[in-house]
Amino acid sequence: MRSGRLVALRGVLHGFGVDAVVVPRADEHLGEYVPARAERLAWLTGFTGSAGLAAVTRDRAAVFSDGRYVLQLAAQTDAALWERRHMVEEPAAAWLVSALGGKGARVGYDPWLMPEEALKPYAEAGLVMVALPRNPVDAIWADQPPPPLQPALPHPLEFAGRAAAEKQAEVAAALREAGQNAAIVSDPASVAWLFNMRGSDVPFTPFALGFAIIHDDARCDLFMDAAKLPPQTRAWLGNAVSVQEREALPGALAQLAGKRVRADTVGTAAWFAQSLRQAGAEVVAGLDPCLLPKACKNAVEQQGSRSAHARDAVAVARFLHWLDQQAGRATEMSAAAALLSFRAAGEGFRGESFSAISGSGPNGAIIHYRVTPETDRTLQANEVYLIDSGAQYQSGTTDITRTVWTGPDAAPAELRDRYTRVLKGHIALATMVFPKGVCGAHLDGFARAALWQAGLDYDHGTGHGVGSFLSVHEGPVSISRAARPVPLAAGMILSNEPGFYAPGAYGIRIENLLLVRDAMLPAASKPFLAFETLSLAPIDRRLIEADLLTASERVWLDAYHARVLAEVAPHLDPEPRAWLTAACAPL
Amino acid sequence: MRSGRLVALRGVLHGFGVDAVVVPRADEHLGEYVPARAERLAWLTGFTGSAGLAAVTRDRAAVFSDGRYVLQLAAQTDAALWERRHMVEEPAAAWLVSALGGKGARVGYDPWLMPEEALKPYAEAGLVMVALPRNPVDAIWADQPPPPLQPALPHPLEFAGRAAAEKQAEVAAALREAGQNAAIVSDPASVAWLFNMRGSDVPFTPFALGFAIIHDDARCDLFMDAAKLPPQTRAWLGNAVSVQEREALPGALAQLAGKRVRADTVGTAAWFAQSLRQAGAEVVAGLDPCLLPKACKNAVEQQGSRSAHARDAVAVARFLHWLDQQAGRATEMSAAAALLSFRAAGEGFRGESFSAISGSGPNGAIIHYRVTPETDRTLQANEVYLIDSGAQYQSGTTDITRTVWTGPDAAPAELRDRYTRVLKGHIALATMVFPKGVCGAHLDGFARAALWQAGLDYDHGTGHGVGSFLSVHEGPVSISRAARPVPLAAGMILSNEPGFYAPGAYGIRIENLLLVRDAMLPAASKPFLAFETLSLAPIDRRLIEADLLTASERVWLDAYHARVLAEVAPHLDPEPRAWLTAACAPL
Repeated sequence: MRSGRLVALRGVLHGFGVDAVVVPRADEHLGEYVPARAERLAWLTGFTGSAGLAAVTRDRAAVFSDGRYVLQLAAQTDAALWERRHMVEEPAAAWLVSALGGKGARVGYDPWLMPEEALKPYAEAGLVMVALPRNPVDAIWADQPPPPLQPALPHPLEFAGRAAAEKQAEVAAALREAGQNAAIVSDPASVAWLFNMRGSDVPFTPFALGFAIIHDDARCDLFMDAAKLPPQTRAWLGNAVSVQEREALPGALAQLAGKRVRADTVGTAAWFAQSLRQAGAEVVAGLDPCLLPKACKNAVEQQGSRSAHARDAVAVARFLHWLDQQAGRATEMSAAAALLSFRAAGEGFRGESFSAISGSGPNGAIIHYRVTPETDRTLQANEVYLIDSGAQYQSGTTDITRTVWTGPDAAPAELRDRYTRVLKGHIALATMVFPKGVCGAHLDGFARAALWQAGLDYDHGTGHGVGSFLSVHEGPVSISRAARPVPLAAGMILSNEPGFYAPGAYGIRIENLLLVRDAMLPAASKPFLAFETLSLAPIDRRLIEADLLTASERVWLDAYHARVLAEVAPHLDPEPRAWLTAACAPL
Repeated sequence: MRSGRLVALRGVLHGFGVDAVVVPRADEHLGEYVPARAERLAWLTGFTGSAGLAAVTRDRAAVFSDGRYVLQLAAQTDAALWERRHMVEEPAAAWLVSALGGKGARVGYDPWLMPEEALKPYAEAGLVMVALPRNPVDAIWADQPPPPLQPALPHPLEFAGRAAAEKQAEVAAALREAGQNAAIVSDPASVAWLFNMRGSDVPFTPFALGFAIIHDDARCDLFMDAAKLPPQTRAWLGNAVSVQEREALPGALAQLAGKRVRADTVGTAAWFAQSLRQAGAEVVAGLDPCLLPKACKNAVEQQGSRSAHARDAVAVARFLHWLDQQAGRATEMSAAAALLSFRAAGEGFRGESFSAISGSGPNGAIIHYRVTPETDRTLQANEVYLIDSGAQYQSGTTDITRTVWTGPDAAPAELRDRYTRVLKGHIALATMVFPKGVCGAHLDGFARAALWQAGLDYDHGTGHGVGSFLSVHEGPVSISRAARPVPLAAGMILSNEPGFYAPGAYGIRIENLLLVRDAMLPAASKPFLAFETLSLAPIDRRLIEADLLTASERVWLDAYHARVLAEVAPHLDPEPRAWLTAACAPL
């Protein structure tokens, strides 16, 4: 069947006048989660990973993904049809030059699915990139699902904290300040923030897919299917927002002729900048103007996040208590399902914020592990179990990882050493105080230093931004050496998730979310920031080597556990409450 | 007199066909220290700071410098002739646009004194930058000193560690790898390294000023006045090096027509890239190819640095002992002179590596303080004295800062708190272990974290690279948030100099040099690096608040002091030895 799809795709190359096409795993918003309609790569190749691209010439075809997906790529694609490639080690551009016999070949792409930045390597490799008037897979995908039409609903002020009109005025002021007449808003998280709306068009994230243009006088054009906008939402949007169908976008861009328009070269589809230039507008490369104000949660959102975490903590405590009796019984899948059911039983749960990572023993060492019926493992006695999960509540988004020892024996010394070093890094970051201007790249090492001292490390970033009832992975700030040079600012929510992975044996990760706050330091000569830990769940004492902790690290841990107990215990039945009391006892 | 110079400079504007000229504080090598001949800015304006620029139109004139020099600029220049400007707050380009009444004006500059990167802001401001055929100040400076003609002498293998031919072959291989046919070498430190030569053309740094072109087959052209090259040096250079007068440079660049030539757009004068393009060569912007290999000292240089530090440590110990009896007697100037004389009495001393910063009481809080007869202060009892100084030895370059309490009373609690926080930062950096790939920007915060916890900080970088009998400020690596994204590598020497400054009261800085080494960690799954502290001098125990140190920080301090005592004491007379023994006693 898939060979027929590949043949069909090759059949349209000639009509498009190109020698090859590229098919990325992306939708028009270039986000992490995409609707079924945009799963073109999976439909064409069978590969369902979250990052990938197919390149198809008349006689060769390859699927590219990264190190996380080597095994999955091999398992899901047909080697008779597809070459399987590592996109970093052999970029698609180099493969295409070789497959097409040199430079100057014409490669078709859908300008709605790639940002301008992603086109550069192809052009630099000497390929002629041809923007196609229609997506080549859509041209052959007979039963392609329709675009999602879930309703976009108001995100009430009690959660949003600020009126949409106020946000729009702030963004417009920033545009005027930068001497720009308008900006393209193509990230659905930005659309959600700018209009105080939420939807359910994609999994895990309450997006209502749409585009917007915001003008320097705060007028906004929102391009969204009318069917998605019930009367209450139209009323909520107000008169300053002109709602239009997506088909009206080209015309709206044409009206920007002669204007200076900001567009993100990384986060926005190339189609926008291309259309703007064609219309005679000046395109100014720049961050989506909603990114920074959205990242800095207002006081209502901060309080909402605290309340979401308090609620989530009850479900996590119930789960950890349940889990403690499950060695030899629960599997990775049943444990994840149990946590989901504890969350679903709580008030206001709006779904998981991502698909839980539930890995026992050696599976815990696979950083992006997704359990399947084929890999599902029963939790054994005396091993390590790692679960990384999160929830959506209207008041906030959670993301927490705990690593537990199943017992009943004492955990081995090496394991306790590793776990305690991860914990020391977690505490070092949680207790950081730093001046304004510091970026995530400057803090990343603090979460690793205790591991580094022993020649150990982990191969992922330390923290990512988290939205407010939005995406669990939110820019523009992160805590990693590769972080963008954007300083941390009060109100941002970031994860704190150092880890350690022993391949084939076990994985460790301890993750809480952090809120960036103004540090109240009487002696400070300039503004300083600090973190407030939002997540509330016990850190497994059976895995801690107390002698490795400094006095102040012990103080932190005991105080944290006391806080967990005080906030969570009142909401538990006697049995889990007793369990939590023991789990939160001073070290 | 200076008004005559300004008038004379204005007189040549017309002949050059420009509306204004800029006169930077720079020589043709764009280095930190320049020969007397290149002190054009000082001759023209009176301002002797190490960073500055004059801009002169027919009716206005301004001198620009940065925050360090606000007072000095005002004191040294005549307000009737010169407007005084902060180059960051009001860049020269903006001032020129305003002074010349708008865009499109023609501004002359000497392409030998500015890199291409420095020209950009002027072009972006709409000015037409005109490369002048001759320096406009030289045209009117009748008694301009001649270029220095100090001899360039061999830097023997016992100090250099690697034959020049081997270095040249390595650089040539890197050029071939990058697909480049040649590279411009205009940094005198790179010339010194590439040819294993040292000279004395500028203060503090053993440069023999000259230029070089290195070709991808390892042939080198060295452009240096024949008078500077005695026969022994000519023989030392060998047959693969073609020595030519500087006048031969244009012809040599012309012969690179059609070639790909690497030139640094920041570190190399614009004249080179301009001449290369005019000759039909392709200019590839890239780091000076000597920078990285020069920064990574070989085993002989590392051992040489240890020996230089051991020797320097004896002079520093003698000085600190002497100083301990000087409160109420020594002044900042006499103390700096005493340290110099202790160093000069040692074996193989080749001069200071920079002009010592000797600041007592409130003067210690001026980060770039240079004592003058007008500011010279007698060291008082019960105050803080800071001295930052360094030396050149053939085997290595030193740079050390110590902050001492003059006594006899106990130091106040706040001061001990600040000093101990600086010390904690110093120890945190000195004991870092980190994987390859980490850059200075990722480590900077470790030296500050203890201060940050109290809302304190210091307004300078934590560390700079140091040469091997070369510049005390050496690129490309530094330890600061603004550091270039160049990873630290084994063999690099960097300073570790956190501080704290209480304006009007005192300054604290504790500086040792660090050598980057491979960390020997049996459990490591990838290569890790660590530091070896090179500098050896007691850290004033009278300023330490022992309760603020962790157990492992105390261990480090006691071990460091034991090492200082073991290495230095055998070279001291009984009285300073007794003093050092007390100063190095366990905490």
